[in-house]
Amino acid sequence: MLGSTYGSLTTHSSPARVVACGATPPHTVHGTAVPPADGAHGGSAGPDLDVSGRPLYAPVPDLDRFFRPGAVAVVGASDSEGRPNAGITRQLIAWAERVGARLHPVNPGRDRVFGLPCHTSVSDLPEQVDLAVLLVADPVPVIGELADAKVRFAVAFASGFAETGAAGAAAQDRLAEAVARTGIRLLGPNTNLNAFESFREDLDGPAIALITQSGHQGRPVFSLQELGIRLSHWAPTGNEADLETADFLSYFASRPEVGAIAAYVEGFKDGRSFLLAADRAARNKVPVVAVKVGRTEAGARTAASHTGKLTGTDAVVDAAMRQFGVVRVDGLDELQDTAALLARARTPTADGVAVYSISGGTGAHFADLATAAGLRLPTLGRAKQDELHQWIPDYLSVANPVDSGGHPVGDRRGRQIIDAILADPSIGVLICPITGPFPPLSDKLAQDLVDAAEETDKLVCVVWGSPVGTEDAYRRTLLGSRRVATFRTFANCVTAVRAHLEHHRFTAAYRSPFDGAPRVPSPAARKAQDLMRPGQQLSEHAAKQLLRAYGIRVPREQLVTSAAAAVRAASLVGYPAVLKASAPRLAHKTELGLVRTGLTSASQVRDTYRELTDIARHEDIELDGVLVCQMVERGVEMVVGVTPDPLFGPTVTVGLGGVLVEVLRDTAVGVPPFGEDRARAMLGELRGRALLDGVRGAPPADVDALVEVVLRVQRMALELSGELAELDINPLMVLPRGQGAVALDALAVCH
Amino acid sequence: MLGSTYGSLTTHSSPARVVACGATPPHTVHGTAVPPADGAHGGSAGPDLDVSGRPLYAPVPDLDRFFRPGAVAVVGASDSEGRPNAGITRQLIAWAERVGARLHPVNPGRDRVFGLPCHTSVSDLPEQVDLAVLLVADPVPVIGELADAKVRFAVAFASGFAETGAAGAAAQDRLAEAVARTGIRLLGPNTNLNAFESFREDLDGPAIALITQSGHQGRPVFSLQELGIRLSHWAPTGNEADLETADFLSYFASRPEVGAIAAYVEGFKDGRSFLLAADRAARNKVPVVAVKVGRTEAGARTAASHTGKLTGTDAVVDAAMRQFGVVRVDGLDELQDTAALLARARTPTADGVAVYSISGGTGAHFADLATAAGLRLPTLGRAKQDELHQWIPDYLSVANPVDSGGHPVGDRRGRQIIDAILADPSIGVLICPITGPFPPLSDKLAQDLVDAAEETDKLVCVVWGSPVGTEDAYRRTLLGSRRVATFRTFANCVTAVRAHLEHHRFTAAYRSPFDGAPRVPSPAARKAQDLMRPGQQLSEHAAKQLLRAYGIRVPREQLVTSAAAAVRAASLVGYPAVLKASAPRLAHKTELGLVRTGLTSASQVRDTYRELTDIARHEDIELDGVLVCQMVERGVEMVVGVTPDPLFGPTVTVGLGGVLVEVLRDTAVGVPPFGEDRARAMLGELRGRALLDGVRGAPPADVDALVEVVLRVQRMALELSGELAELDINPLMVLPRGQGAVALDALAVCH
Repeated sequence: MLGSTYGSLTTHSSPARVVACGATPPHTVHGTAVPPADGAHGGSAGPDLDVSGRPLYAPVPDLDRFFRPGAVAVVGASDSEGRPNAGITRQLIAWAERVGARLHPVNPGRDRVFGLPCHTSVSDLPEQVDLAVLLVADPVPVIGELADAKVRFAVAFASGFAETGAAGAAAQDRLAEAVARTGIRLLGPNTNLNAFESFREDLDGPAIALITQSGHQGRPVFSLQELGIRLSHWAPTGNEADLETADFLSYFASRPEVGAIAAYVEGFKDGRSFLLAADRAARNKVPVVAVKVGRTEAGARTAASHTGKLTGTDAVVDAAMRQFGVVRVDGLDELQDTAALLARARTPTADGVAVYSISGGTGAHFADLATAAGLRLPTLGRAKQDELHQWIPDYLSVANPVDSGGHPVGDRRGRQIIDAILADPSIGVLICPITGPFPPLSDKLAQDLVDAAEETDKLVCVVWGSPVGTEDAYRRTLLGSRRVATFRTFANCVTAVRAHLEHHRFTAAYRSPFDGAPRVPSPAARKAQDLMRPGQQLSEHAAKQLLRAYGIRVPREQLVTSAAAAVRAASLVGYPAVLKASAPRLAHKTELGLVRTGLTSASQVRDTYRELTDIARHEDIELDGVLVCQMVERGVEMVVGVTPDPLFGPTVTVGLGGVLVEVLRDTAVGVPPFGEDRARAMLGELRGRALLDGVRGAPPADVDALVEVVLRVQRMALELSGELAELDINPLMVLPRGQGAVALDALAVCH
Repeated sequence: MLGSTYGSLTTHSSPARVVACGATPPHTVHGTAVPPADGAHGGSAGPDLDVSGRPLYAPVPDLDRFFRPGAVAVVGASDSEGRPNAGITRQLIAWAERVGARLHPVNPGRDRVFGLPCHTSVSDLPEQVDLAVLLVADPVPVIGELADAKVRFAVAFASGFAETGAAGAAAQDRLAEAVARTGIRLLGPNTNLNAFESFREDLDGPAIALITQSGHQGRPVFSLQELGIRLSHWAPTGNEADLETADFLSYFASRPEVGAIAAYVEGFKDGRSFLLAADRAARNKVPVVAVKVGRTEAGARTAASHTGKLTGTDAVVDAAMRQFGVVRVDGLDELQDTAALLARARTPTADGVAVYSISGGTGAHFADLATAAGLRLPTLGRAKQDELHQWIPDYLSVANPVDSGGHPVGDRRGRQIIDAILADPSIGVLICPITGPFPPLSDKLAQDLVDAAEETDKLVCVVWGSPVGTEDAYRRTLLGSRRVATFRTFANCVTAVRAHLEHHRFTAAYRSPFDGAPRVPSPAARKAQDLMRPGQQLSEHAAKQLLRAYGIRVPREQLVTSAAAAVRAASLVGYPAVLKASAPRLAHKTELGLVRTGLTSASQVRDTYRELTDIARHEDIELDGVLVCQMVERGVEMVVGVTPDPLFGPTVTVGLGGVLVEVLRDTAVGVPPFGEDRARAMLGELRGRALLDGVRGAPPADVDALVEVVLRVQRMALELSGELAELDINPLMVLPRGQGAVALDALAVCH
C-alpha cells in the first residue's frame, strides 16, 4: 500500500462549518439574504478561503427588491417620439404599473415625461427608490449620486463596453470600480429590458427562472409561457460589470417559486463564483440547465467578441458543470424542454421508464433511442403483462414498450391500460409518443393521459410528433395540463427525462466538495515548497521528490554522477534496472535515446551510463546526473497531471497512458475542489476505462491507489497553487489491485 | 512491396456492362421499367451475379399503375356500418374519385356497395383492373383469381402474419409463394391505406417520396404537406411478403418528380436488394434519408416483433448506408427536416456557410454548433466585411457570423446585407437563426430573406426559434416560401445542411462498386479452396497459406516438428526468431504461453521448442508442429477480418490492433462490394487513425498496402463465400510507408 503521509482529501480536512449556510433543505434558504454572521463562516481557522486562497463560501445576494422594487427611477427618461429612450421609458412605465411600483422619471431637460413629473437629478427624488434604470450613455457619473440617494440597485443599458475592445473594457472597469466603491449592485452594462418583461400571472406551480447573457437567446424560453409553462424571472446579465450569472443562479436557487433555472451562458466572469452558485443549487436540489457556448474554438472566439468574456477551456467547463450537476444542453429547444420538465416533475419513485404507444413501430423506435441514451426500460412482469392483455390482443407485445394496437384507446380500456402501467412499481416515468393526429384515437389518448397524470405522482410524458402543432389535442388538451410534460421530438423527450432522473440521482448523493476542502497547508507543502525553482522546469529527480513529499510512490532510484556509482545504485534498486539522463528542462528523453530499460547486468549498466552521458554531451545537455531506477513493468500506464485554467485555476487531469492519451486524448478533468466520488467518476469517463478492470487476462488494476493519487495531486495543486504551474506524471504505473501505483516519470514546471 | 498476384479489386475486374442501366444522369431512368435486354445485362461472362452468386443488377419495378391505377377492385368491399372494411371501402372510393380511377367492389354477399355495383368475384369484373385491394383475412386463395384476371398489383391489409410468430411467418411464406408463382406484385400484408392518401395537388417543385414499414411512423412526414412541403408518394410496405423497401427506393429514385426519398425502416428483407436500390439512388443523385431502428439490441428486438424482419447488426447496416450515401438520422423530426431540405435545395455552388443574425449571441451560439458538426464557416474577406460595415456599425463583428445588431433590418439595409452575403463566392449557404418573434424586426427580416431567396441559386435557411409556431412571419412568410428552408431548431438545421452538402460531395464523386465487382473467381480461389477444411478452424500455418494465395504477405516461416528442424528453420528465417505452437482450433496461444518472441540464438530456439511442446502435451493439445517465424517489429498493429452478416453476407472489418481493438472496439466495416475509396474511408473512420500517420516520432505507415490487404480480403471473402465462414488477421503489421504489410497471425474458420 501507499505510504500514508496523508489521508485522501475528503477524509483529511476538518468537517466544515460551511454546512450551516449551504446544506439546508431545498428552498428553506429563502430569505437568508444577508451573509451569515462571522461565527458561522469564519472564525478560528481563518476566513472562508481554501488553501489556494479561493473562497469556500459566497452569500446569496438579496435581489428581492431588484425584481420587485417599490419605487424606480428612470435616469435619462424621455418621451420624445422616435428616440430609443422614449420606447424604453414607455415600456418601463407599463411594467411599473403592472407590478405596482412607483416610477420616477429623471431628466434635467424636462418637467414631465409621459405625463409623469420629471426630476432634475436623483437627489431630487420624492422618495427613496430601490432601483435606478440608467438610460444614459455614460453611467459612471451617476453611480455616486445613486449611492448618496441610498439606491440599492441599478441597471445600465448602454453598450460600447467590454464587447467593443480594449477602450470599452477600460470604461467597464471604471464602471465596476465605481459600483464596488459604493456597494450598489449593478446589472449590465450592455443589457436590456428583459428583467422587466411581462410575466403571465395566471400560471402556477414551480416556475423556470431564466438567466441569459444575450436577450435574444432567452426569447424562446420566455415564450414558453404561451405554452403554459410558468416563468418567474429573467436576468439578462449583459457584460456583468457587477452582478454576474452566478449571483442570479444563487438567488434563484434560493427562491421557493423556482423549480428550475435555465441559463444561456457565453462566458463566466469568475470560475469559483460559478462553482459556488452551482453548489448552492445542488445543495438546494434546484436543477440548473444551461447552454454554454464554446464547444469549438470558433464559437468561443465569437462569444468572446459578443460580451467580452472568457469562454474557458471547454473540457474544463464541461467537467465543472458535470461535477456540480448542471445539465449542459446544446440547443435552445433542449434548454426549453429540459428546464420545463425539471421545473415541474416531482421526485421520481423509480428510474424505470415505460413506453406506451398505439403503434408497434413507434414504440420500437422510441425504445431504441431511449435505450441508446441510457434510459432503462424494464421488462414488465408476467402478471402485469397478463393484466394488460385483458385489454390488448395477445399477439401484440406489452413487455415494454407496450403496443396497444390502437383500438383499445377508443373506449374505457384506453385509460385502464395507462393506469395499469403507472401502477407498476418498477415504473417511474410513462412516455407516450403520439406520431400524429388521428382524432378518433389521438384526442382520446391525449385526454386519458392528462386525466391519468392528475391522479399519479409519476411522470407522464407525451411526444406530439406532428410538425404542424396547431391541433387541439396538442394545444388544448396536452399543453393545458400542468401534469403532463409534452414534447415535440423523441430526442428532446429522451434528453429531458434522462436529465430529470440523473438530477435526482445526483442531488440525492450530493455532498458539497466545499465542505471538505482543505483550508490550511499540510506539512508536505513546506517540504514541497523547498523543491520549487521559480520559473523553471524541475529535473525528473526533483519532480519525483515533490511527489514523494505528497505520499505518491516513485520507484526506488538514485541520482548518480559516475559509472561506478551507477553500478552500485543498480545493485541497490535491483535488476533489471532503468537508466535515465536527468536534467532540468529536459523533454523528449525517450526520443533522444536518454532512457534505457531492462538492464540486467553491471556491465550493461556501466556501458549504458557512458552512452547516456555521450549523447548528452553531443546534444549539449547539461545533466545533473543519471537516474538509476527500479524497473516496474506489470501495470496499467496512466497519466495524472495538473493544468492551469484561466477560469478555474489549477485543474487535475487523469487519462490512459501510451497511445491512448497520445492519439485519442482519452482524459478526464477534475475541477478542484472535488472529492473521492468525483475522482472515481473521472475514471468512469475514460473510454479506455476497461483497461483498469483487466483485459487479455491481466489482473484488475489498483483503482483505489489511482484515486488516491488523483486526490493527492489535487491537494498538491491547491497547496502549491502559487508555485506549481504544471505537473505531468507520465506514466503512473497502476499495479494490480492491492499493490498501489508508482509514478515512473514526472515533469513539473514552476511559476 | 507486396507480391502482385492480384491488382486491387477496383482495378482488376472487367469494366462493367451494368453501366448502361445505372450510371445515367438523374431521372432519365424514368420509364425504363422493364429490365434491359440481355445484351446489356448478361452475356458471355454469365448472368449478372458477382463471384459470390449475389446479383449485380436489379430492375426498377414499374409501379406507375400501382400508384395511378386506371381501375381498382376492392375484394371484400363492404358498406355495413361499423365494420372496419366499410370505413376502408369508403376511403378507397373517395380516393379513386380524386385520382380518377374506376373502382369495382367485389363481394359475393352483396349487389351494391355504397351505391356502386358489386361483383361476385374478380373474374366477374367488367374490365381489366390494375390493382386489387384485398380486405380479406386470407389473401392466398384470391391470388390465383387475380392472376387469371391479369391483375398486376395487389395490396393485402390483413395482419396476423410474420409479425405474430412462427405460424404467421409460415402463412406469409405461402402468400409469398403464391405471389411469386403468378408474377403479381403484392404490397403487404399487414399494411394500410397510406398509399391511397390524399396528396396536396397545389404544391409544386421536387417532392418527397415516403417509404415506411409502419404507417404511424410516416404520419409526421406526410403532415409536412400542411407546412407547404410537397409529397408525391407513400409506400407503407408492412411485412414485405413481396414488394419491399428496396423496390420503392429504386422506383422513386427513377421518378422525375421525386426530389428526395424519406424512409422509416425497421428491418431489411434482403441486404443486396437494399444495396442495389441505394446504388441506383446514388447514381441518379436522388438523396435518401432514413431512420433505421436498431441502434440498440432492445430496439432491434422490438422492431423484429413488430414486422417480423431482421434489423441486422447495426454497425454493418450503418456502414452499408454510409457506403451508398444514405443519410441516416435518428428522429422523425430530423427525417422530415432533412428530407425536405434535400428534396428542394439546388446543387450548392460552394460549401461555405454564412451565419447571419440580428444578435451576436445567437450568431455565436449557432456558429459554435455548426462548426462542431463539421460545417465550414469561412471568414469573409476584408472587402466583403467593409461592404457590410457600410450598413452595420463598426463595433459589431461581420467576419462570419455576421451580427447586424438589429437596427439595419428595419430599412433597406436589411435586404442589402443579405444580398451582400449571398453574393460572396465562398458562400453556398446562408443560415439566419431568428430566436423569436419581435415583429418590427423579425417580420421584415423574414420577408427580406424570402425575397432574397427568390433571386439566388444559393440555399437560404432560417431557424424560427419560437416554440409557439403560430406567428405570421413563420406560418405565412417563411412556410409560404418554396425557396427558404425553415427549421425550428438549430440542431435540425445543422444536420440537414450538412447532409445536403455531403450528399452533393458524395454523388459528385460516386462510382458504383457494382460496376467493378468481380464476376469470376481468380486463380487464387482454386488454390485457396484446396486449403479449406469444411467445419474446421484452420491451423495458423494453413490460414497463412490462404493469405499467401491471395497475395497477402506473411512472415518468412517454416512449420517444423523437431527441435533440430526448428534451429535450421531459424537460421533460414533469420534472427531474432519467433516460435509458435501450431494446431487447428488453437485459440489463446499467447495466454497459454505458446508464443515466444525475440529468440536470438540457436540454443534459445532449441529450448523454446521443447518448452512449447511440453506445454502442449500438458494442455492436451495435438500440435501439427511449431512455426518458426521471422520477427517483424516496427509497424502499426492492425486487424483485418471477415465476419458473416445475416443480411449482407460476408463483411470486411478493419481496426487498430492491440488494446485499441480489445478495449475500444475501434473498427470499421466494409460491406461488399466496395472499392478502394471505401477501403480508404474505413481507415478514416477509426478513432485511432492518427497511429497510421505516425505518432511519437514513428514513421507514417504504409496505408496503401493496408488498403490493398483490405481489398484482397474482400475478394477472398466473396470468392470463398461458400467455404470461408470467418477470417481474422490479428495482427497485420503495417510497416513504414513503402514497405508493405505483413500478416503475423491469422485465424480462419471454414463453413
